[in-house]
Amino acid sequence: MTYDPRSFRALTFHDALPAFRDGSDTPRAYLERCIATVDAREPVVKAFASLNRDSARAAADASTRRWADGKPLSPIDGMPIGIKDLLETKDHPTEMGCEAWRGNFPKRDNAAVWALRQAGAVIFGKTVTAEIGGAHPGPTTNPFDPSRTPGGSSSGSAAAVGARMMPAAIGTQVGGSIIRPAAYCGNVALKPTQGGINRGERQATSMSTHGPHAGCIEDMWQVAIEITTRAGGDRGSLGLFGPNTPPPAQQPGRLIVLETEGWEALDAATKAGFETFLENLRAAGITLLRRRDHNFIETLERSVADGRAVCGTITSWENRWSQRALVDAHPNGVSERAQNTLCRAETMSPDDYRAALLVRDTAQLVHKAAAPLADAVVTLACPGPATPWSGDVPGQPLNPRPTGDFVFNAPSSMLFAPAVTVPLMGVGGMPVGVQVMGQMHEDARVTGIARWLLGNVAPVVV
Amino acid sequence: MTYDPRSFRALTFHDALPAFRDGSDTPRAYLERCIATVDAREPVVKAFASLNRDSARAAADASTRRWADGKPLSPIDGMPIGIKDLLETKDHPTEMGCEAWRGNFPKRDNAAVWALRQAGAVIFGKTVTAEIGGAHPGPTTNPFDPSRTPGGSSSGSAAAVGARMMPAAIGTQVGGSIIRPAAYCGNVALKPTQGGINRGERQATSMSTHGPHAGCIEDMWQVAIEITTRAGGDRGSLGLFGPNTPPPAQQPGRLIVLETEGWEALDAATKAGFETFLENLRAAGITLLRRRDHNFIETLERSVADGRAVCGTITSWENRWSQRALVDAHPNGVSERAQNTLCRAETMSPDDYRAALLVRDTAQLVHKAAAPLADAVVTLACPGPATPWSGDVPGQPLNPRPTGDFVFNAPSSMLFAPAVTVPLMGVGGMPVGVQVMGQMHEDARVTGIARWLLGNVAPVVV
Repeated sequence: MTYDPRSFRALTFHDALPAFRDGSDTPRAYLERCIATVDAREPVVKAFASLNRDSARAAADASTRRWADGKPLSPIDGMPIGIKDLLETKDHPTEMGCEAWRGNFPKRDNAAVWALRQAGAVIFGKTVTAEIGGAHPGPTTNPFDPSRTPGGSSSGSAAAVGARMMPAAIGTQVGGSIIRPAAYCGNVALKPTQGGINRGERQATSMSTHGPHAGCIEDMWQVAIEITTRAGGDRGSLGLFGPNTPPPAQQPGRLIVLETEGWEALDAATKAGFETFLENLRAAGITLLRRRDHNFIETLERSVADGRAVCGTITSWENRWSQRALVDAHPNGVSERAQNTLCRAETMSPDDYRAALLVRDTAQLVHKAAAPLADAVVTLACPGPATPWSGDVPGQPLNPRPTGDFVFNAPSSMLFAPAVTVPLMGVGGMPVGVQVMGQMHEDARVTGIARWLLGNVAPVVV
Repeated sequence: MTYDPRSFRALTFHDALPAFRDGSDTPRAYLERCIATVDAREPVVKAFASLNRDSARAAADASTRRWADGKPLSPIDGMPIGIKDLLETKDHPTEMGCEAWRGNFPKRDNAAVWALRQAGAVIFGKTVTAEIGGAHPGPTTNPFDPSRTPGGSSSGSAAAVGARMMPAAIGTQVGGSIIRPAAYCGNVALKPTQGGINRGERQATSMSTHGPHAGCIEDMWQVAIEITTRAGGDRGSLGLFGPNTPPPAQQPGRLIVLETEGWEALDAATKAGFETFLENLRAAGITLLRRRDHNFIETLERSVADGRAVCGTITSWENRWSQRALVDAHPNGVSERAQNTLCRAETMSPDDYRAALLVRDTAQLVHKAAAPLADAVVTLACPGPATPWSGDVPGQPLNPRPTGDFVFNAPSSMLFAPAVTVPLMGVGGMPVGVQVMGQMHEDARVTGIARWLLGNVAPVVV
């Protein structure tokens, strides 16, 4: 099960379309292959909170008829897709990995789920989330090593795509919950510009986003754009900008290399591997700019240097009242980790929150000021390969980050910036992602750059 | 029941505090007086969707004990308050004036309700809302003439305060749903800066706000600030700024008079009355600036001249998916008015929505540019007195605005601007409000100016 980015072939959907058109393959047959993989892998990977083979088969049959009639609803008509179990889905429970939400079944679709159905996608199941999108892990394991975390909180979405059970899945990110698990599981994934994909009525927190995990750039973009052409972005946001088909590969001229607060503590193999990757970029003719090369870059590094704490402060305050209501109604319904986060939030004042917002606003100004320097930012998507996880040990202090560290993800979250991770590194037989981050609304540009990297830069194995 | 702003005395709470301190009055006795008024007025006014006298009495008794011990939780400890039936409240159903939500009882408190309880307020009941905050009216009548609308969608909050059943109530505004009903019912009310008061997890739409209706400025401000010191503002917003006690009266030097798109169609009596009010302002030494006096003011008038349509476009798009899910689950559960709004929203594209956001952004820039010209904006709070309403007539086209026209309210909504209405006019024996609007985060300033107007400018009766 050792991962090698040079040989691993993820499951993809876009390249099945010619066969759907000529009738040599069908969405129903595609789904059955996914189900066979699920049957083989799910007992160990445990990516799903809920699966409905019957409703998926009915949806795939309807899609098969549309392809046979030459009238698919979109290029993702028939795509089996998983939905993170934070999003309401009319034909599945929405239990958020949380005991207090056990049995919750509102029988309505989140706006993004509604849009996916309109585009003909096959809602295959709900994927495991860390408890209410936080740090407390669900049962999912890493598809390349079951002793390791798949990352979180989009654990099931990342693992299902990494295990080739589905070509795509929806994740959500507030601090690092799309990009990190995707990077740990060898996915391609997009954390869009803040507000880019409609989160529906329940807008969660000010840094919350929805984004696609996929096996390839083409499926990733197509899922995102099919949602947003039908359901737009968040209320008050302009929504995702970009073409209706995957942006073409785009070679960058200059890239800023962002070290982030994760750089110092990075393991030697991953650091060496990333420097090799940067050498490969230089060899391809790309100019790289680092913190010593321009005052604006040093200022940007400093403005996000406390990113984890800033994200944690903002998010725990914003979740405080809904989580207090949840705990009041279900005193034993949330984990000790979630209880601890709530207790920390309840020591805060409005001015503590405002202070964190000011740090975030300032970082966004600095990032914007640096825009003319380069086409995008490149950095790691995770601090080395997925960490081992075998559960809490009774009597021992709780591991604060059992799904891994979001130290490389806090910057794009607090900057409201679009970020794409691509699986261009293998470290110790496990995937490590490389992240491309752009200015707000440059989702298509970072997707094009990520696509170019995948096609033109040799993956690194250390 | 004829209304005269010179003689009408609203029910207030802040002036009962000395008697609570010296034991000559108690919150329980205060509540019993409110209940007596409810018993007398509610059969006609119909302000409440739900009332729980037992839980209110228990809360008032607890407050009475705190005052007796000299340990009130806040200056609103013991205040009976109504909560618009869009906000979740753990001890009342939340039915949103909508058949599809009948029986909804999530048994949790919205962040603002939670904060009010922390401050010791007595949650007295849920007040009637127009259906899901839209145009379709509930049963509430105007407390000064039961043949007229109380306004909407905060119908019950405005009517209960106008009928002296409670000293304060929480309303919500997206287009004009706090300020207009307050103005129709002789209330004082604050529509805060966008994001000023925490709407909780369900953040509704991009212009939605929570705000207090009250009988006086002091109670209005105290309710707002007691909520926000405990629960802050919306996620991602700085929240309400201002002192912990009511801002002192503040005489403005210059005021911009905003006519809005409502001016042309205004009835002659209201227009003449407002011009008399403006004369009274000039007599008090205030410089008034109108559209002909400065290019920026003319530009501001034009930037909000299509305000109703802009607000309607933005809000109907933002409600589209949740309302589609509601109608899908309950095909006969919403009114024809709500169905029509949904149908219009479903003809829109993301670019239609973006175009409306651009109009809104532009208007906000223009408003900001005009800030140095004056201390605030003054305008009417409603287009004349409340309109008659006796229900839809079968076979006739639906009245598009049975709870009145939000033409004077769309500007502050689309500008994200704080607005206070004060009852300084009587037209034909009915209340008409005067509105003071400021720049974002100037909630305390507009409150101070409104307080000065109430204390220093003669009300107008026409």
